[in-house]
Amino acid sequence: MTSTIDPKTIGKPQHPRRHVRTLTGYLPETDASGKEKWPKGEEKVWKAGMRGLDKDVPDITKSFVNHVQTSLARQPYNLDELGAYQAAALSVRDNLLVNWNETQLNYTRKTPKRAYYLSLEFLMGRTLDNALLNLGLKDQYNDGVQQLGFNMEDILEKERDAALGNGGLGRLAACYLDSSASQELPVWGYGLRYQYGIFQQLISPEGNQLEAPDPWLEHQNPWELPRLDVSYEVRFYGHSERGNDGRAVWTGGQEVLAIAYDVMIPGYGTKTTNNLRLWESKPKRGFDLNSFNAGNYEGAVESSNSAAAITSVLYPNDHTLKQQYFWTAASLADILRRFKNTGKPITEFPDYAAIQLNDTHPTLAIPELMRILLDEEELSWNQAWQIVTNTFFYTNHTVLPEALEKWPVPLVEHVLPRHLQIIYDIVTVEKKFPGDRDRLGRMSLIEEGFPKQVRMAHLACIGSRKVNGVAELHSDLVKTTILKDFVEFEGVSKFGNVTNGVTPRRWLDQCNPQLSDLITKTLKIDKGVWLKDFTKLEGLLQFTEDKEFREKWAAVKQSNKERLAKYVQSTLGFTVRTDAMFDVQIKRLHEYKRQTLNILGVIHRYLTLKNMSAAERKKANRKVVIFAGKAAPAYYIAKLTIRLIVNVARIINDDPETKEYLQLYFLPDYSVSLAEILIPASDISQHISTAGTEASGTSNMKFCINGGLLVGTVDGANIEIAEEVGESNVFFFGHLTPAVEDLRYQHTYHPIPIEQKCPALAHVLNEVSAGRFGDGHVYEPLLNTVRQGDYYLLTDDFDSYIASLAMVDEAYLDRDEWIKKSIRTTAKMGKFSSDRAILEYAESYWNLEQTPVPSS
Amino acid sequence: MTSTIDPKTIGKPQHPRRHVRTLTGYLPETDASGKEKWPKGEEKVWKAGMRGLDKDVPDITKSFVNHVQTSLARQPYNLDELGAYQAAALSVRDNLLVNWNETQLNYTRKTPKRAYYLSLEFLMGRTLDNALLNLGLKDQYNDGVQQLGFNMEDILEKERDAALGNGGLGRLAACYLDSSASQELPVWGYGLRYQYGIFQQLISPEGNQLEAPDPWLEHQNPWELPRLDVSYEVRFYGHSERGNDGRAVWTGGQEVLAIAYDVMIPGYGTKTTNNLRLWESKPKRGFDLNSFNAGNYEGAVESSNSAAAITSVLYPNDHTLKQQYFWTAASLADILRRFKNTGKPITEFPDYAAIQLNDTHPTLAIPELMRILLDEEELSWNQAWQIVTNTFFYTNHTVLPEALEKWPVPLVEHVLPRHLQIIYDIVTVEKKFPGDRDRLGRMSLIEEGFPKQVRMAHLACIGSRKVNGVAELHSDLVKTTILKDFVEFEGVSKFGNVTNGVTPRRWLDQCNPQLSDLITKTLKIDKGVWLKDFTKLEGLLQFTEDKEFREKWAAVKQSNKERLAKYVQSTLGFTVRTDAMFDVQIKRLHEYKRQTLNILGVIHRYLTLKNMSAAERKKANRKVVIFAGKAAPAYYIAKLTIRLIVNVARIINDDPETKEYLQLYFLPDYSVSLAEILIPASDISQHISTAGTEASGTSNMKFCINGGLLVGTVDGANIEIAEEVGESNVFFFGHLTPAVEDLRYQHTYHPIPIEQKCPALAHVLNEVSAGRFGDGHVYEPLLNTVRQGDYYLLTDDFDSYIASLAMVDEAYLDRDEWIKKSIRTTAKMGKFSSDRAILEYAESYWNLEQTPVPSS
Ligand SMILES: Cc1ncc(COP(=O)(O)O)c(C=O)c1O
Ligand SMILES: Cc1ncc(COP(=O)(O)O)c(C=O)c1O
Repeated sequence: MTSTIDPKTIGKPQHPRRHVRTLTGYLPETDASGKEKWPKGEEKVWKAGMRGLDKDVPDITKSFVNHVQTSLARQPYNLDELGAYQAAALSVRDNLLVNWNETQLNYTRKTPKRAYYLSLEFLMGRTLDNALLNLGLKDQYNDGVQQLGFNMEDILEKERDAALGNGGLGRLAACYLDSSASQELPVWGYGLRYQYGIFQQLISPEGNQLEAPDPWLEHQNPWELPRLDVSYEVRFYGHSERGNDGRAVWTGGQEVLAIAYDVMIPGYGTKTTNNLRLWESKPKRGFDLNSFNAGNYEGAVESSNSAAAITSVLYPNDHTLKQQYFWTAASLADILRRFKNTGKPITEFPDYAAIQLNDTHPTLAIPELMRILLDEEELSWNQAWQIVTNTFFYTNHTVLPEALEKWPVPLVEHVLPRHLQIIYDIVTVEKKFPGDRDRLGRMSLIEEGFPKQVRMAHLACIGSRKVNGVAELHSDLVKTTILKDFVEFEGVSKFGNVTNGVTPRRWLDQCNPQLSDLITKTLKIDKGVWLKDFTKLEGLLQFTEDKEFREKWAAVKQSNKERLAKYVQSTLGFTVRTDAMFDVQIKRLHEYKRQTLNILGVIHRYLTLKNMSAAERKKANRKVVIFAGKAAPAYYIAKLTIRLIVNVARIINDDPETKEYLQLYFLPDYSVSLAEILIPASDISQHISTAGTEASGTSNMKFCINGGLLVGTVDGANIEIAEEVGESNVFFFGHLTPAVEDLRYQHTYHPIPIEQKCPALAHVLNEVSAGRFGDGHVYEPLLNTVRQGDYYLLTDDFDSYIASLAMVDEAYLDRDEWIKKSIRTTAKMGKFSSDRAILEYAESYWNLEQTPVPSS
Repeated sequence: MTSTIDPKTIGKPQHPRRHVRTLTGYLPETDASGKEKWPKGEEKVWKAGMRGLDKDVPDITKSFVNHVQTSLARQPYNLDELGAYQAAALSVRDNLLVNWNETQLNYTRKTPKRAYYLSLEFLMGRTLDNALLNLGLKDQYNDGVQQLGFNMEDILEKERDAALGNGGLGRLAACYLDSSASQELPVWGYGLRYQYGIFQQLISPEGNQLEAPDPWLEHQNPWELPRLDVSYEVRFYGHSERGNDGRAVWTGGQEVLAIAYDVMIPGYGTKTTNNLRLWESKPKRGFDLNSFNAGNYEGAVESSNSAAAITSVLYPNDHTLKQQYFWTAASLADILRRFKNTGKPITEFPDYAAIQLNDTHPTLAIPELMRILLDEEELSWNQAWQIVTNTFFYTNHTVLPEALEKWPVPLVEHVLPRHLQIIYDIVTVEKKFPGDRDRLGRMSLIEEGFPKQVRMAHLACIGSRKVNGVAELHSDLVKTTILKDFVEFEGVSKFGNVTNGVTPRRWLDQCNPQLSDLITKTLKIDKGVWLKDFTKLEGLLQFTEDKEFREKWAAVKQSNKERLAKYVQSTLGFTVRTDAMFDVQIKRLHEYKRQTLNILGVIHRYLTLKNMSAAERKKANRKVVIFAGKAAPAYYIAKLTIRLIVNVARIINDDPETKEYLQLYFLPDYSVSLAEILIPASDISQHISTAGTEASGTSNMKFCINGGLLVGTVDGANIEIAEEVGESNVFFFGHLTPAVEDLRYQHTYHPIPIEQKCPALAHVLNEVSAGRFGDGHVYEPLLNTVRQGDYYLLTDDFDSYIASLAMVDEAYLDRDEWIKKSIRTTAKMGKFSSDRAILEYAESYWNLEQTPVPSS
C-alpha cells in the first residue's frame, strides 16, 4: 500500500545518507548514574527469554531436535543426513550467535580502532567442524548426534564448501579472518555474496574440463545471517556535474541496493567472534528509474534482475568493474556509518579505521572515499586526501605484468563518471611528481593507448599509507620492478613485507587430527596453547631421534594416505596403492605454476621405467602422482594440460609393466575440502613456478606443516620455508629469479633447438606428439609453448627438475632419514601461522589493539 | 567433489522417478505387535527435545526473545518493529508447525482420499493475524509483545502481503484453503512461488499507473518452509520418439528442478493445518545440457538463470506455457509419489486423489498424467484415459470468448513435443463424437487458423469427471454457450455449479473485529461456533427492531469509516470526511467491470451538484466515492480509466462549491490488506458488470457480510445475494443477460447517436472531451469505446444506473431504515461462507471425508 510517487524524484541522491541502527553500531543509553538503561520492554521478561551457550549434551540434543521440528519442519521419521547436518549447523549457529552478539557489543562499548579486510574472494571451505573446534564443543556434539542416531563424520561430509574464491588470495583471506578472531583483534571482512561460487569442475571422458555453475546456496546456508536491516544504495552510470567549489553532484543512472549477509568468524579458544559481511545486490524496491522506461513492466522486471545479477557469479579469474564498485561502495558506506555512530569528527577517521586492500580489486575505495569526503562531507581536497592516505593499506599479490589490473577509461567514465573525474584530479595533483617525461609516463595512473587505461596498482599505491608484498622475495620484487618509481618518490619506508601464513586450526588440527593428537601427547602441551603459539612446535625437534615417536609419525602419514585412497575409491572408483610415495601438485592450473613441467616429468619417469628391466624396476621408488586444480574456463593452454594429465594417467595406470611403480591421478573439482584430504597424505609436494612468478604460495606451508616435504623452485615463500626448516629438507632446483630476464632474452634472440638444449624433454614432447597418449595432434598448441618461446623456462629447468626428483627418490628410500626430515620440517614451521602474519599487520600496519571480550 | 561425467548421459530421462522420503509420504514402521517402532536414535532423547504448542505468555515471550537473538541475530538494543514482526511470526510459525506435523502424520496414517487444488494464483494477503486467530493465541501474543515493549497492531502492519495472484480467482483459492483446513478436509493447494508477486501500483502526478516489481520475499518469508528434500526434474523442449506400442520416449532439451516450499494453512479452531505447496524453479545442479554448449561457462550461468526465471514473475493477467507445465508436472509428480507410498495399484489412483483445476491454467495436467501413465506406468490408452477422467475436476471462471485460454500448436510442439502428440491422440479418439462437420469443428481441441491453437477449455472439459461454474447464472451460461455441444454429448449430469464463498474468519472477524464482537454479544453464541456455521447469522434478524442494537451497528460502521480515513490521511495525506456515505468500487480495472460507468456517473453527479443552488445542495446526500484496483500493464483503456479517475478527483475535491457533498479518491496499490480496510467502511459498493460477464464476484459477498449494500447489475453472484437478502436490500439496474446479444447487434447494425440515446451520458463525455478535468484529448480513446460500438453497453445502462444511485441516496437518507437493511443483509449472508462451498466440492465432486486430527 503505497502512495503516489513523482518519477522526477527518482534517481536523485538522498542527502544525508540514512543511518541504520544495528547492534554493531549502537551504544546502550545510560542513566544519570552511568548505569545502562534497559532499552525496551520489561527487562526481566527479556532476560528470562535469552539463551546462553549450550554446554551439555542434553542442551545440545534439545536444540538439535527443536531445529528439526521447526526450522526444518521434519521429524525423526524422515530425517536424513543432510537434514541432520542442517539441524546440527543451526544449533551450532545459535551458539556462535551468543558470542557474536557479545563481541560486537564489546567493540561498540570500547570503540577501539578497527581494521577492515576488503577482499573480493573468501575461500572459506566448510564451517561446521571449524566452529565446533573453536567453540570447544566437538565432543559434546559427537555424543549428541550419536544419541539421536547419527554419526558426526557423515554429517560433516554433507556440508557444501563455501567456495567464494579462485585460489590462494581467497584462502589467505579466510585464514586471516580465523587468526584475527583467535587473536582477539577487532577485524571485519567485507566481500560479496556470490550466488554461484567458483564453478564446479567436471572431467569428460576425453579429459576435457567442463564447468558447471556452483549453486552453493541451494540448500540454504545456516552460516549466514541475512541482515535485511543493513542496506545501502549504490549508483551506477548517470552523470556527474561539477560545481565551482570542487564538489560535484552525481545523479541518474541505475540505483541498486546492497543487502548485508553476516558470517560469524569464531576465534579459537576465545569468545571473540568476528564478522565477515558479504553484500548481495537487489533491485531498489520498485523505484529504480530504469523500471519506468516506457512504462514497460517486463522491462522493469528485467531491470530488477539486472540489479540482482551484480552479485550472481564469481567470475573465474577476473572480476567486473560493477562488482568491484558495488562492493567497495557498500563496504565504505557501512564503515563510515559505524564510525559516525561514535560521534567523532570525520578528520579522526583514520584513527578508528584501517582498511586493507587485498590486491587491487577494492582500489575504487580510494576515489569512492574521496567522493564521499568531497561531495558529501564537503571537505577540501587536501583534507580528504590526508584522510584517504592514512586509511588504506595495499597488499600486492603479483608482479606478473599481465596480471596487473587495468580498466579502460571509457568504461570507467560510463559506469562511474564521478570517480573518473576524481582519478583525473589525482593525476593533476600527481603532476607535481618530480622527474622526466618518461618517468611521469611510467608512474601515471593513466596508461596511454587505445583505449587509455586506469592502472589500479598505481592508484592503490599512491592512495595508501603502506604497501606490502606477501613474501620476502616478492616484496623485494614489488619495490624493484612494478613500483620502483614510487619507492624513489615516496620513500622506501612506505613499502614492507608480510609473509603469508595459514591457520594451524584448519590446516593441522582439523585436517590431520591424528597428527595433532600425536603432537599434543608428545609435547605434553595443551593443544589450546600450541595451536595459538605455533613456534611451540619446535619442541618436536628433540624427539627426532626417538624411534617410537618416528614410527607413530610415519603411521599417521600412512593412515592419511589410506583416508585419501578411500576417498578416491568411493568417488572415482580407482584403487590407489598406499605403499608408495605420494607426490602432490594441487593449485590453479597456470603456465607460470608449471603443471606442464610436472606432467612432462611424469612422462619422462614413465618412459624411463619402460626402458628398465623388471629387475631394475623392482628397485625403483614407487610413486603415486596426484594433480588437482581448476583452469580458468577460457584458458585454453591450461585446459589442454588437464587433458594431457588425464590421458597420460589412462595409459600409465593401465600399463601392467609399470603400474606398480607409477600411478597418476587427476582429482576433479579441487576445493578446500579436497585440499584437507590431500595435504596430510602427501610425502612430497611440488611448488615449481618459474622463479619470480609465484608471490608466496600458501599450500607449500600447509604441506610442510603436515610433514610433507617440498620440491620447488627458489621462489615465493619456498625460500623462507627453506630458511626455517633448513635447505637440506627442501629439494630446490632450477634457475633463480635474476637469471629469468636474460634467459627469456636468449630464447627470443638466440634460440637453441630443444633437441640440443634438452634432449630428455624433446623426447618426451615427441612421444606426446606421436600419439603415445592418444590423439597427439590435440596437444600441439601446448607443446609449442615449450618448443617456441618457452616463456616459462621449461627447457631451462627440466634437467635440474628431473635431477631433484631423483634426489627425492633417493632420500625417500632411506625411510628413517625421510621421517626425520618430515618431523624437522613440521617442527620449524611455526613462523607460518597466520596468527603471526595478522599480528604483524595489526602492529606494523594498522596500529590495532587486541580487544578481548570480558568474561560475563 | 564430484566424479567424471559423461555428457552423453545428460538429458536422458531417469527411470524410474526417484522417490523422496518425506514426512508427508512416510508411514512409521511397526513391530510384530503392531506398535510403531521408534525410527531413529534414542526415543527418550528425541522426545525430551520436542516442543509442544506455546500456550502461556511466558512461553511465548521466551520463544520470541530466542528468535530475536538467534534467527534475527539481534538484541533489544536494536530491535525495530519489522524485527519484532519477524520474531513474532517465527514463533507463531513454530506453533503452526507442531500442528502441521501432526496433521500430515495423521493423513499418512489414515490414507484418506485427498483433494489437490491446483491454482496458478493464491492471493493470501497477510498471515500473522490469521494464524493467531486460528491458533486461538491472539490474546496471549498481544500480552507478550506488550511486555517486550511493542504493540501488536503496529507489528501486524509490518507484514507484507503475499500477493501471488491477480484478483478474484486467486483470492478464492486462498479462501478455499482456509475453509478446507477449518472443515478438517484433507486438501492441499499447489501453486508457484513467484519471486515477484503482482506488481506494485504507483500513480504518477499525471494520474498514470506505474508498475514496479513486488519483491515480496525481500525481507524473507517466515511463513514458508523450504523443503529442499522435495524436488522433481521437469523437462522442456527436446524430442519425443514414439515406439510401436503407443509409448514414447522424450529426451533432450532443458531440464529444470522444481523445489517445494510449503506454506502452512491452519484451520480455525482445529488442529488441522493443511499445506499449500509452491514450486520454485532452479537449475539442475550443473548438469543441464544447455550448460555445456560450446563449453562456455558464461552460457552455463545464463542457462542456470533461465531455469530460475520460470518462477520469477507472476505475469499480470496471463501466464506462460512454461510456467503452466513446470507447475503441473511438479505437482503431479508429487501427488503420484505420495499415492505410490500407499502401495496401492495405480488403477486405484482416482480413489485416493481428486485434482481440482482452478480454471484452465493447469489443464496440461491432463496430457501430463496421460504421458506418465502411458510412457512410464506403461498402461494402455483406455486404462490411462479412464484414470485421468476420474481424477480431474474443472472449474470454469469465465465465458468471455476473449478470455478463453488457447495455445498456438507450434509453441506447444516446441516446448512440449510429447504432450502435443497426446493431445492429437485425444483428438483422434474424439473423432468418434457423433455429429456433423460443423459440430466437430466447434468441439475440436484444435482450433483451425494460422497458427492452429489448442483450446484449453475443451481439453479440460473432456479430461475431467465434472465441470462447474462459480455461480448459478454463470454455470448456466457455461452449459448453454461455450460448452453447449459437450453437454449434449456427455450428458448434463457432468456439469454443475458451486457458487463461490469467502472465509468469514478473514472477511468478518479479522477485518471487522468490532462487528464480530457485536454479533457474538448479540447472538450470545461463541464466535467459534458461528464463524464455522455461518447461517447462525440469521439470528441477527430478530434484533433489527432493537434500537440500541441498531445504534451499535451504526457505530461500528462509523468507526470503520474513521479507520479508513485515518489510513488515507497517513498514507496519502488526504482528509476524507467521515460524515458521508462511502461508495466503493474495488476490483481489477476492466472494461467489463465498468469502472468507466462509475466514474462517468460520478462526473454526472458533480455536474448535477454544480447546477444546484446552495440551498438545494444542502439537501443532497453527502458521498465519498472510492476506487481501487490495478490495470494490466498493457491494458491501455483500463489505464486511461485510472487516469480519468485521478484527474476528476483532483478537480472535484478542490471545488469549494461541491467538495462538502462529493469526494472522490483513487487509492493506489489495491491489495487484500487494503480490501480489509475498505470493505468494513463501505455503505454501498458497486458490482456493475455488463450482464453475463462477471462469473460470480466475491467482493460483493464480503461487502454484504460487513453490512454494506450493493448496487449492481443482475449478474454473477449478485443474483444469489439478492435471493438471500431480499431484492429490497439490493439496488439492481441495467439490462439482463438475454438482452445483451441483441443490444450489441443493434449497436453494430442500427447505431443510434449517443446524444439521442442517452443525452445525460453524452453531456458527461463532452465535458471530459472539452478538458474540464484537464487534457481532454488524452481521454478520446476511452470515450470512443462508449461513443462507438459500446460493447459493454454503457449507453444502454447509464440512465438506469443513475436512477438506481438516486434510489440509493434516497434510501440512505432514511438512516434507520438503511441500518435495518444493513443488518438484514449481514444476517442473510450465511450461504456465502466458503465453508459451505468447499463442503459442496468435497461431497458432490471429490467424494472426500473430513479427517480430524485425533487429540493427543
Ligand atoms: C582450494 C584452494 N585453492 C588454492 C589454494 C592455494 O594454493 P597455492 O598456495 O598452492 O597457490 C589452496 C590452499 O590450500 C586451496 O585450498
Ligand atoms: C485484492 C483483491 N483482488 C480482487 C478481489 C476480487 O474482487 P471481485 O470479486 O470484486 O472481482 C478481492 C476480493 O476481496 C481482493 O481482495
